[in-house]
Amino acid sequence: MKSVGTETTRSNAIAPPDISRYAAVRRSTTNLCAPLSPEDCQIQSMPDASPAKWHLAHTTWFFETFVLERWQPSFRPFQPGYRVLFNSYYQTVGEQYSRPQRGMLSRPSLDEIFDYRRHVDEAVARLLAERGDDSEMASLIEIGLHHEQQHQELILTDVKHALSYNPSYPAYAAALPAAPTTSTPLGWNGFAGDVCWIGHQGEGFAFDNEGPRHRQIVEPFELGSRLVTNEEFIAFIDDGGYQRPELWLSDGWAAVQSYNWIAPLYWQRGDGDWMHFTLSGLLPIRASEPVCHVSYYEADAYARWCGARLPTEFEWEVAAQSVAARGNFVESGALRPLPSVDAGVGQLFGDVWEWTSSSYAPYPGYQPSAGALGEYNGKFMCNQMVLRGGSCATPQSHIRATYRNFFPPQARWQFSGIRLARRASC
Amino acid sequence: MKSVGTETTRSNAIAPPDISRYAAVRRSTTNLCAPLSPEDCQIQSMPDASPAKWHLAHTTWFFETFVLERWQPSFRPFQPGYRVLFNSYYQTVGEQYSRPQRGMLSRPSLDEIFDYRRHVDEAVARLLAERGDDSEMASLIEIGLHHEQQHQELILTDVKHALSYNPSYPAYAAALPAAPTTSTPLGWNGFAGDVCWIGHQGEGFAFDNEGPRHRQIVEPFELGSRLVTNEEFIAFIDDGGYQRPELWLSDGWAAVQSYNWIAPLYWQRGDGDWMHFTLSGLLPIRASEPVCHVSYYEADAYARWCGARLPTEFEWEVAAQSVAARGNFVESGALRPLPSVDAGVGQLFGDVWEWTSSSYAPYPGYQPSAGALGEYNGKFMCNQMVLRGGSCATPQSHIRATYRNFFPPQARWQFSGIRLARRASC
Amino acid sequence: MKSVGTETTRSNAIAPPDISRYAAVRRSTTNLCAPLSPEDCQIQSMPDASPAKWHLAHTTWFFETFVLERWQPSFRPFQPGYRVLFNSYYQTVGEQYSRPQRGMLSRPSLDEIFDYRRHVDEAVARLLAERGDDSEMASLIEIGLHHEQQHQELILTDVKHALSYNPSYPAYAAALPAAPTTSTPLGWNGFAGDVCWIGHQGEGFAFDNEGPRHRQIVEPFELGSRLVTNEEFIAFIDDGGYQRPELWLSDGWAAVQSYNWIAPLYWQRGDGDWMHFTLSGLLPIRASEPVCHVSYYEADAYARWCGARLPTEFEWEVAAQSVAARGNFVESGALRPLPSVDAGVGQLFGDVWEWTSSSYAPYPGYQPSAGALGEYNGKFMCNQMVLRGGSCATPQSHIRATYRNFFPPQARWQFSGIRLARRASC
Amino acid sequence: MKSVGTETTRSNAIAPPDISRYAAVRRSTTNLCAPLSPEDCQIQSMPDASPAKWHLAHTTWFFETFVLERWQPSFRPFQPGYRVLFNSYYQTVGEQYSRPQRGMLSRPSLDEIFDYRRHVDEAVARLLAERGDDSEMASLIEIGLHHEQQHQELILTDVKHALSYNPSYPAYAAALPAAPTTSTPLGWNGFAGDVCWIGHQGEGFAFDNEGPRHRQIVEPFELGSRLVTNEEFIAFIDDGGYQRPELWLSDGWAAVQSYNWIAPLYWQRGDGDWMHFTLSGLLPIRASEPVCHVSYYEADAYARWCGARLPTEFEWEVAAQSVAARGNFVESGALRPLPSVDAGVGQLFGDVWEWTSSSYAPYPGYQPSAGALGEYNGKFMCNQMVLRGGSCATPQSHIRATYRNFFPPQARWQFSGIRLARRASC
Repeated sequence: MKSVGTETTRSNAIAPPDISRYAAVRRSTTNLCAPLSPEDCQIQSMPDASPAKWHLAHTTWFFETFVLERWQPSFRPFQPGYRVLFNSYYQTVGEQYSRPQRGMLSRPSLDEIFDYRRHVDEAVARLLAERGDDSEMASLIEIGLHHEQQHQELILTDVKHALSYNPSYPAYAAALPAAPTTSTPLGWNGFAGDVCWIGHQGEGFAFDNEGPRHRQIVEPFELGSRLVTNEEFIAFIDDGGYQRPELWLSDGWAAVQSYNWIAPLYWQRGDGDWMHFTLSGLLPIRASEPVCHVSYYEADAYARWCGARLPTEFEWEVAAQSVAARGNFVESGALRPLPSVDAGVGQLFGDVWEWTSSSYAPYPGYQPSAGALGEYNGKFMCNQMVLRGGSCATPQSHIRATYRNFFPPQARWQFSGIRLARRASC
Repeated sequence: MKSVGTETTRSNAIAPPDISRYAAVRRSTTNLCAPLSPEDCQIQSMPDASPAKWHLAHTTWFFETFVLERWQPSFRPFQPGYRVLFNSYYQTVGEQYSRPQRGMLSRPSLDEIFDYRRHVDEAVARLLAERGDDSEMASLIEIGLHHEQQHQELILTDVKHALSYNPSYPAYAAALPAAPTTSTPLGWNGFAGDVCWIGHQGEGFAFDNEGPRHRQIVEPFELGSRLVTNEEFIAFIDDGGYQRPELWLSDGWAAVQSYNWIAPLYWQRGDGDWMHFTLSGLLPIRASEPVCHVSYYEADAYARWCGARLPTEFEWEVAAQSVAARGNFVESGALRPLPSVDAGVGQLFGDVWEWTSSSYAPYPGYQPSAGALGEYNGKFMCNQMVLRGGSCATPQSHIRATYRNFFPPQARWQFSGIRLARRASC
Repeated sequence: MKSVGTETTRSNAIAPPDISRYAAVRRSTTNLCAPLSPEDCQIQSMPDASPAKWHLAHTTWFFETFVLERWQPSFRPFQPGYRVLFNSYYQTVGEQYSRPQRGMLSRPSLDEIFDYRRHVDEAVARLLAERGDDSEMASLIEIGLHHEQQHQELILTDVKHALSYNPSYPAYAAALPAAPTTSTPLGWNGFAGDVCWIGHQGEGFAFDNEGPRHRQIVEPFELGSRLVTNEEFIAFIDDGGYQRPELWLSDGWAAVQSYNWIAPLYWQRGDGDWMHFTLSGLLPIRASEPVCHVSYYEADAYARWCGARLPTEFEWEVAAQSVAARGNFVESGALRPLPSVDAGVGQLFGDVWEWTSSSYAPYPGYQPSAGALGEYNGKFMCNQMVLRGGSCATPQSHIRATYRNFFPPQARWQFSGIRLARRASC
Repeated sequence: MKSVGTETTRSNAIAPPDISRYAAVRRSTTNLCAPLSPEDCQIQSMPDASPAKWHLAHTTWFFETFVLERWQPSFRPFQPGYRVLFNSYYQTVGEQYSRPQRGMLSRPSLDEIFDYRRHVDEAVARLLAERGDDSEMASLIEIGLHHEQQHQELILTDVKHALSYNPSYPAYAAALPAAPTTSTPLGWNGFAGDVCWIGHQGEGFAFDNEGPRHRQIVEPFELGSRLVTNEEFIAFIDDGGYQRPELWLSDGWAAVQSYNWIAPLYWQRGDGDWMHFTLSGLLPIRASEPVCHVSYYEADAYARWCGARLPTEFEWEVAAQSVAARGNFVESGALRPLPSVDAGVGQLFGDVWEWTSSSYAPYPGYQPSAGALGEYNGKFMCNQMVLRGGSCATPQSHIRATYRNFFPPQARWQFSGIRLARRASC
């Protein structure tokens, strides 16, 4: 038996953090908030989402708590109360302000949070200048930057969710001129599988949940050559997809009934045609764009309806190992998934996160990091499904083939879509 | 039999609205928001409360909808969407934006709402200048001003509730230097009762629920000479008041258990002593001040504990008929109830709303106004208790002896307190 | 001014309890359970209802706890655990088994509860034989018998509710041959009102909440000559009654929406026509019978729809003072309300409980009894509306003109219906 | 690389169903209900559990619907309404009576359900006699018998849960004389792992979720030599296990807080010592018996606390492949887990179901059966964890090494316990 892939493959070698990269990543966060008013940054539309202001503060808290507190000489907190207010879920750090009430924190104001950011950024810059060669500190700043990028995506998804409650359907950003209006046809690409190496190894950054690199047996399989489109998904709706229990997982059908799902999140009927709320306001659905804002249950039901299935995360990773991590990321400015234009297996990266049929579990031999950062990933390994590939709201430098995102199967507010898989035809 | 009181008694004759009074009342509202940031004005801490921004808009909507739309030549709405967004509960006007989601409306911004206010105020001023003698229009503007004053009080109570979620206990306003630190002792004042006239009649303004003026039989009774103080209420707590079901109404005891009440709203244990959150931040309880932020259930249990009862709204009104409507209102700037200094029956007006044992019901022969304003009061006449006398957050010109406020028995976020009554001793 | 009614009017003089009356009342309870299987007696369909087995036990517990425990020499409990299991809400007696879980008590079995009843009945009979002249004991047994009769009605309403969950619509009893198929036309009877005596006084039994007898001012009014019929209520439904918010109290409209009410409880559409579940199974609605199983909200909305209102409990009592307490009670065996056949003000007693617009409050000077029985009525005087007159499930000897029943405004599982009132036309 | 295990291993070859085995399995079900009264068989203590009467009916419905309806000439349903009443979750068969209301079905009575069972049993016996060689029919009867055995276990777990609500702690069966009071010490047994064959293949019966047999890579590991005992789990409790968030999965900690867990289900503090409710009533905890009625979250937290982890289902199966499926099953009559007496890896079968760290997912290439029985397993493959090995409430002939049970991670009412695993020490 031969292993597919090798232990040394690395697609995204990333240099250790320096001041300019630190500043660039941090600036991206504030840039994302530029179109938002203090009130926009205040609101929290559900317990799973957070106000943009809180994201701005929490990412800063991360550097203050895990970097400054440890390495800054004569460290003093910017504001002692922030330790609790902006702690997300680190029990090791201490108490946390109640998550569903983050939207109640009218104070500190948005301006004060920008002051907080400046204060911490100056201190981190000084530390980087003075002791940038401390590899443990560098490692924590590195994690902080990747953490920051995760929250950049959450700012967009959470703001989108919050603005969707406004009947005037405010646009976060102007829509870009429409891209191609057709997509490539759906084909199937075969993979031989066998014993494959899965997980990250090598020099670049990866989260602890991407390792240890290990072997998995992957049976021969085929992967859809692109994401499922709105047009295809509308055919599912029109075929009674949301009314036929036999297409759904038991919990999925219960979700359909209790939430009254009849279409993806943000969809509504216009005059005959489907409209959806986007970061550019309420717009007509474009047939050729990937379907987005579906739950795992909907992805799974769609796949069953068309006689296919969702890929496992291992199948997805095997396919992604030979592809560059390029695609429609946040940098494109589209802020929505775009039609497929590639030949081969397209859209593996960017556009939408792809639900896999793998529940989020530790890889064999996984050990969470020691200390508070051990809470980063490990304690969520239950009741969640793995998504792969990044989305139109993900920073490009954040993603790689081994990257594991995870959300509960009923979650819909992320940019999540559908990739089909099936057994290899022989 | 002789009636107590006469049909012609009027304590608050109010002139019809003119431009300066209109402007003054409207300005009071914006003044109340001066200490608040856009974020403070955005947040909504429970479905019963509304964001300050929403209050600012809704009171304006009231004039636009009920005055401008009818009397302004070639009326055009400031913003058509506001008709739904800022409609509170007028089914006759049409659809309403979901009440528990008012805090989600980050747009329009606070600045836009201030524009809205200016726009409507200019139009109303023109109308008043041109057709101030239209008595129907004058009557609607009059209602609008009293409506505005009700929301002035709600801005304070709702902001207090929202800020209480902030662990930094922000002050809305600086505390005034402490007033007297002792209160008059509790005495009892007797009233003969008999057939009494109840309800409003005469020239001044009154809401429809204050009439028709009619007769009620009131048995001889005695009224406590002042409000119940914090010191007295702490004795109830210390005597196990919140742990003794025999002191409570059945629904009250259920509330104690399901909400885990152990003290009035906003109270917390400091180092040994009780503290409470006020509009001036977290402060020690002052023994001599009236107890405040208690529910009807707590007021009723306290009264039972000390062998007394709460007054009916008729008893209260009989007592208030001979007293001027003066007291510690919002104009004092204290924003908290103050110790009693009066001889006789003191504190009937101002300080705290006084729970009565009367459920909120129509007076005999009551007919709601025709049209949308018929929804103002009548449809709430179920599951609520009457409170009387106004509070430290009420504008003085808003209150009178016949004024009927009403809240559900479990409500605690208003400035509500306790007046005792008992049978006349013979 | 002259008082309507006199202080000495007594319509139902009841002899003090003797063995035969005690036995007769107790036997009625077990007779009511004769058509029920052990499983029927076990089930509890909502927290507000109790299993029939629990009613059988609790009424027995009442005599054991309040009579035997005090007067029986060398009293020993039948089963010590019953003290908690079958205590309804007497905090003074001690702990109670959780109300919503009464349906979980498969043990003791129904047979054991019948043993319990026999045991207690023999002991009470002995006590009555030996010390029947002890007036305090006689008074407690008297209360126990009236308490038993209340639970007789609850057995029927709770069993009806529980059986309604069964798609086979089981009949508790065979339907009697249909009575008259037309009802008398709706007329209006005038009452002069003025200062009226309200409440019970005299020799017969009454609950503490029926006193003290006192004066009320009742303005001239008119009362509908019979109950509202199904036919009349269907006209309300057909006129969009359940879709028009302007007809409803605010809380009533909220109930319509959250419970999806479209008709009275137990109604469903058959092939075109309305059917309803009755104690004789699923049957067609008869047009001429009184509408039943409506909430206070529906009664109030119906009255508003037809330009009338509900009577106050004082108006109802004034009308009932001159009428004998006769009607369609449980003894008729109909177990459903029947069409009106009387001239004058008909159906005041029996058929259905009549919602009044009076919230359940203490009469002036009301004092609950001392001891545990003080919890019988007083602690429920909040959030409930008064109903008057008894129903087709009430024992005839249980009712009188001063009798005050009470339920929350949303309750529908009692035999509750609608009597209209209006201002006297002059 | 060499595969551990072989494709042909079969531990429980089971003959095709004949009349005597059919009768024996069916009789076991009714025998299990012998100690129960009609009322015991009626009650349902939570939506996840069903009344014993419902289990008796549903298992019969299974044969009627899937066997008689298809193969019986001129089939007529015993009672047409049963098709809906006793359908558990087969959407393909049609509508289902609401699961949380199963306890409301006082009719049909227990006696009628026993008639139903006799009726169906006679018909199946005739069919077996006449066409026992129809392999498709035989296969469905076979499934029906295994299905029946699953419900035998559920009868015990659901009755235990229901009786636990009774403060008298009724015993379902007398306790057997205590077995050994000490258990073997905890050791560790190593397994080499590598590429292993997992899943069922061969002649005996297996559910569809046990296949297809396929390869899994299993890294070297060690397995605890017995189940975790009460004594060991009490050490976890005493060390603050339920108060230390760092020991728990995030969702597990949320469960601890929202359900106020402080010990396994059914445990309570006696005078100093722990007691637990068992099928023989309330009894002291025995230190040497396996801990039982813990959720996945508690099992996972316990493992983390002692520096180990839970096994994957593949590790468990690898260990079980070389062991006979013998142990403390329902046939022992103990109805509780017993101390370990074996050398080697003991207690893999019987005593308690063992939580694995594997979420319940389809094996590669899994296809649900065609038709209604395709709903048996596949649609539950989300949000559940796999348990292995059977329990003291499982019939011995029901279990095998490849058997996959599954429950949500918060479930505690099954006989579920803890087996530890860890990396192979090198």
